[in-house]
Formats: sequence, C-alpha cells, structure tokens
Amino acid sequence: MKKIAIQGERGSFHDIAAHQYFDGEAFELLCCKTFEQVFEHIQHDSSVIGLVAIENTIAGSLLHNYELLRSSGAVVIGEQKLHIKHALCCLANEAWSDIHEVHSHPVALAQCRNFLAMHSELKAVVAEDTAGSAAYIAHHAKHGWAAICSSYAAELYGMKVLQEDIHDNKHNFTRFLVLSNASQASLLRSEEKIDKASLVFSLSDEEGSLSKILTILSFYGINLTKIQSLPIIGREWEYMFYVDIVFSNPMRYRQSIDAITPLVKNIKILGEYESSK
Amino acid sequence: MKKIAIQGERGSFHDIAAHQYFDGEAFELLCCKTFEQVFEHIQHDSSVIGLVAIENTIAGSLLHNYELLRSSGAVVIGEQKLHIKHALCCLANEAWSDIHEVHSHPVALAQCRNFLAMHSELKAVVAEDTAGSAAYIAHHAKHGWAAICSSYAAELYGMKVLQEDIHDNKHNFTRFLVLSNASQASLLRSEEKIDKASLVFSLSDEEGSLSKILTILSFYGINLTKIQSLPIIGREWEYMFYVDIVFSNPMRYRQSIDAITPLVKNIKILGEYESSK
Repeated sequence: MKKIAIQGERGSFHDIAAHQYFDGEAFELLCCKTFEQVFEHIQHDSSVIGLVAIENTIAGSLLHNYELLRSSGAVVIGEQKLHIKHALCCLANEAWSDIHEVHSHPVALAQCRNFLAMHSELKAVVAEDTAGSAAYIAHHAKHGWAAICSSYAAELYGMKVLQEDIHDNKHNFTRFLVLSNASQASLLRSEEKIDKASLVFSLSDEEGSLSKILTILSFYGINLTKIQSLPIIGREWEYMFYVDIVFSNPMRYRQSIDAITPLVKNIKILGEYESSK
Repeated sequence: MKKIAIQGERGSFHDIAAHQYFDGEAFELLCCKTFEQVFEHIQHDSSVIGLVAIENTIAGSLLHNYELLRSSGAVVIGEQKLHIKHALCCLANEAWSDIHEVHSHPVALAQCRNFLAMHSELKAVVAEDTAGSAAYIAHHAKHGWAAICSSYAAELYGMKVLQEDIHDNKHNFTRFLVLSNASQASLLRSEEKIDKASLVFSLSDEEGSLSKILTILSFYGINLTKIQSLPIIGREWEYMFYVDIVFSNPMRYRQSIDAITPLVKNIKILGEYESSK
C-alpha cells in the first residue's frame, strides 16, 4: 500500500487533496506536524510520497515550501488543485450559544477574518492544523470550543457543522505538489503523460537575462504557466526564478532546457509531471 | 502636517516603516483596521498618504494588497524596506510565569511558530494587529496576557519585553509601498529622482507573449527587479503579471511603455518612484 506523507491531520485539506489525486486508491496516511517532516519522510524512505501545498489564490506562493523543495532531494511527480471551503464545527451536543473559542491554523483564521470580526465574542486561537483542531475538540470533548476546518473533517470526527462557507473570499483555491524521492520518480509517473515541468534557476543582475531565457523557451514552443522572482537573501544583485512550464512535445522541452542551461546559474528541474486538468 | 494612513495601531511595523520613510518629519497617523480603509482614506481625501505592506521575504507577496492597489485610484510614490523583528511583551509588573495567553496578528503568530511550539503552555490568540495587542493589554491591564509585537511598540505602551527576536527566520524583511491619490502624486515625489516603476498587465495565453514584452523592455535597457504571475480568476487562459522595473533613463522608460502597450492587455502603471537604497 502507498504511504502518503502530509502536513496536518486526517481530514485536513492536504488529506482531501491526496484522496482526490489518488482517487479510489487505498493508502496509508503519514500525518506530520511540519512540512520539514514531510520532506524528511521522503528523503529517508523512498517508498513515501509527499503532498504539499505550494500556492493559494489568496495567500500566494508558499515560499518556505519552495525552499524546502529546492534544497531537498524530492522530485515533483504530479499536482492537484483544490477548492478551499472553511466550516465552523463543534461538539455534536453543543449550540452556537455555547461557543466562546474558535481554534484553527493561522492561515485559516486569517481567511475567515470577516466572519470572526462579526463574532467578536469568540476568541480566535491558533493551532497547528485545521482538522487537528477538530480532532482535539472531539477527542478531549472540549465544551465551548469550535474549530475552523473542512466539513469533511467535521464529519470525520463526528462534529456538528454550525456554519458552512465562512471564508471571506469564495475564490479560494490551493495547488498541491505530489513529491517523491528522486530514485522513485520515474516509476511513479507515466512518462508519456508528462506535459509540465517546474524549474528554479538564478540569474545575475545583467540587463535582459530573463528576457533571453523566456525568448529561448518561446522559440521551442514552451508555454509559461507561472513565474515568480525571489531575491536571494544575502546576495543583493542576484534573483532566483521559480517557473512552471507546459509543453506538448517532450523532446522540444528537453532541447529547450539544454538551450537555456548555459545562460542561467544553478538550474534545477524540480520535477516533470502531468498537469492537472 | 502630512496625514499618513496605515493598517494597524501606533507601534505597528507599518508605523515604524512610515517613520523611517518620512524620517524626521512630523505627521498625523491614521490607524485603520483594514487595508481597505487605508485605500478609502486615500480615495476620499487627496491629502492622505498611505503606506501598505506589499511583500515579505517569508510570507511572499500580499496578493490582496496588489488587488486593492490595482482596482483603486491610488498611485505608488515610494517604497520602504524594513527588517521585521518580533518580541514578546507583557504588563510591566508581570513575569514569564504569569503568562498564559499570547495575542498577535495571525502572520506574526505564524512567524513565531517555533517559539510558540517550545511554549505549548501558552495559548496563541489571533488579534487584528501586533501593536494593537500590546495596546489592548496595556490599556485594559490584562494580567496573564502577552503580545507579540515590535520592541518599539512594547516601549510605546509601557510594556516589559520578556524576550526579543522570537521569530523563527531572521531573514524577515517586508517591503512597503507609499501611496497617494493620483491627483497628488506629481506633487509628492521629485520627478528627477524617479528610477523605478510598478506595472500590472495581462496577456492572453499565446506562446511567448511574456518573452516578447521582456525582450522589448531589455532592448530599452529596462531591468526587472520583480515579476509575479497570477492567474485571472474565472478567465482560465489569461494571466496577470505584476512587474517592478528599474531604469536610469526616464525617457527610455517611457518609450518602453509605449512599445509594450500594444502587445499587452489592460496595462496599468501602478506608480513611478524613487527606489529605496
């Protein structure tokens, strides 16, 4: 059986994304407290597959996960997009009027800011995880506490949903990357379906360097779906670029990488995979 | 006297950035609960200058503020970079052993995750603002409560600093944009010092569109300091690009904008200003 490492508990958005990606497959879930632990699992046990959030339409890119991915030996083998919907839940025998504290991950609390502002009588308390908050309240029968999590997590832990869709912005989508140990990547993806790649490279601050790279990619018929620049801390005049590209001709893709490699510094292919539709 | 609108209370990182930018100048601070209110102030009172965070080396870009900037009539007239350092503070007559709750903005709580994990006896509670938490504790003499904020805020509200530098990552920098009503922009900046501009434009998903734009900018000797792509919600095949550019020749800059305008959709110059050194 597959082993899937995620940050968060059963019922978390990572768990939901893993079930959507491995639709219908049975797998063992390795719930980690931190993203670092997910990467450690992948590094030390080549049979482990990781699934980590990489960008959100509201919160933007998870720069820390980009950095963990770049510095780890993990390889991207797939992606999954998920519509994020937050619900407020509590113990099954409680009502709205019993609740005085709301627990969740700080990002989830921030994404329900308007809801919390309308309920200023509730104390918003930071926890490690959305589903983990629901699990804690359920297992410890915490009266007066509610969690912000998915309605799936609420159901999983036998909690009552007090209110659905309490997030401020309804266009809340997260993109997750599916990761494996480099030694297993070619076994875990079907080579003929690869039409997307994630790269990172740096450029010295010469005029027009990035334009040269993108022009070459365009000559080879390679399309960008994401570009994000990051200053390199401590090296003020160098920038790092995270780039996602899509292509229909894998040979042309490989040739384009050969063509840009002499013009960039420290290029790393983070993974080649099938794009999510 | 200048009126400066910020999100947060006196002593917040926005306040510190405003004092660094307007070094030595006296100004009236308009403390707003939300970034929306900062933009409303600028829109309704042309004498108000706003200062808003736009990107952080750890949290990444504040996409919501980009969107507010794009859709508002505000213009960027300057920028300020600030090293973010979090401290834990409490009432002057309290000690570590008295504290059982820590209040702060969700992003600040997230940035002190390791510290909070080491002190699991403390309940981490979400508040609107870092300095606002310190102010609340001071004004209401909240025994047993601590705030995560700048040590400047602690001093401002007569609080005791229990521990400095409690943030996980020491490379924590935020870049702020200084904004004004479009009608005032040319009065508030010195035209001869302008060497940077922030743009936003969209492109249809044709192969190589972005490479064309960057190649033209490079032909005109314009350098990129930041690029960030964003999918346009609801229009799956179109992307929006936020770009910061620097230049030494303002005439060449203006010509380059004329040159790219026919090749992009919905280009908007968010502002032209002096880059922070």
